Amino acid sequence: MSKYFLHGSLNAIEGKGGELADLLLEASRLVADAKGCSLYLISIDEKVPETVWVTEVWDTKEDHENSLKIEAVRSLISKAVPLLAGQPQRGHELSFLGGHGIS
Amino acid sequence: MSKYFLHGSLNAIEGKGGELADLLLEASRLVADAKGCSLYLISIDEKVPETVWVTEVWDTKEDHENSLKIEAVRSLISKAVPLLAGQPQRGHELSFLGGHGIS
Repeated sequence: MSKYFLHGSLNAIEGKGGELADLLLEASRLVADAKGCSLYLISIDEKVPETVWVTEVWDTKEDHENSLKIEAVRSLISKAVPLLAGQPQRGHELSFLGGHGIS
Repeated sequence: MSKYFLHGSLNAIEGKGGELADLLLEASRLVADAKGCSLYLISIDEKVPETVWVTEVWDTKEDHENSLKIEAVRSLISKAVPLLAGQPQRGHELSFLGGHGIS
């Protein structure tokens, strides 16, 4: 059965890209223990440093949505919101078939 | 130091999406031993099954480019080319900062 793959970005206000990336790296440590989380990667585009990219693989979409209800994750999200420039867009949802490097 | 992250897609001709995905899954097994390859994931968009997505993390861009010179990888690429609809586009290049789930 394929897993749930999500690749999306968050835009920070001017000068806050680094701070947002740090928060999302912290989030990656939190969701490491969340049910069904296989991958939660943080990347940036050097040409657009205010945009932080999150690439995730979860056993199911439901596992992903449940992770957003975890108290510590909700608290991180509330810290991130003031750093954001505009509404976050839903990421690109794919079905993960397999590959190398993921547990 | 950040790693090299690449997220891109290949478009198959009508009815060949599955075959292309299988070839890329085979490629993921090959590059598992290539220098600097941390991640090589294959995904599809259920709504656009002819498009196969590849998400990669390498220690360096050079490691990624060197992998394309490996004989077995070149042979797989030559099998994939007849399945493609048009020229492959360069993927989205990012700097991978960190996260969960990657060795």
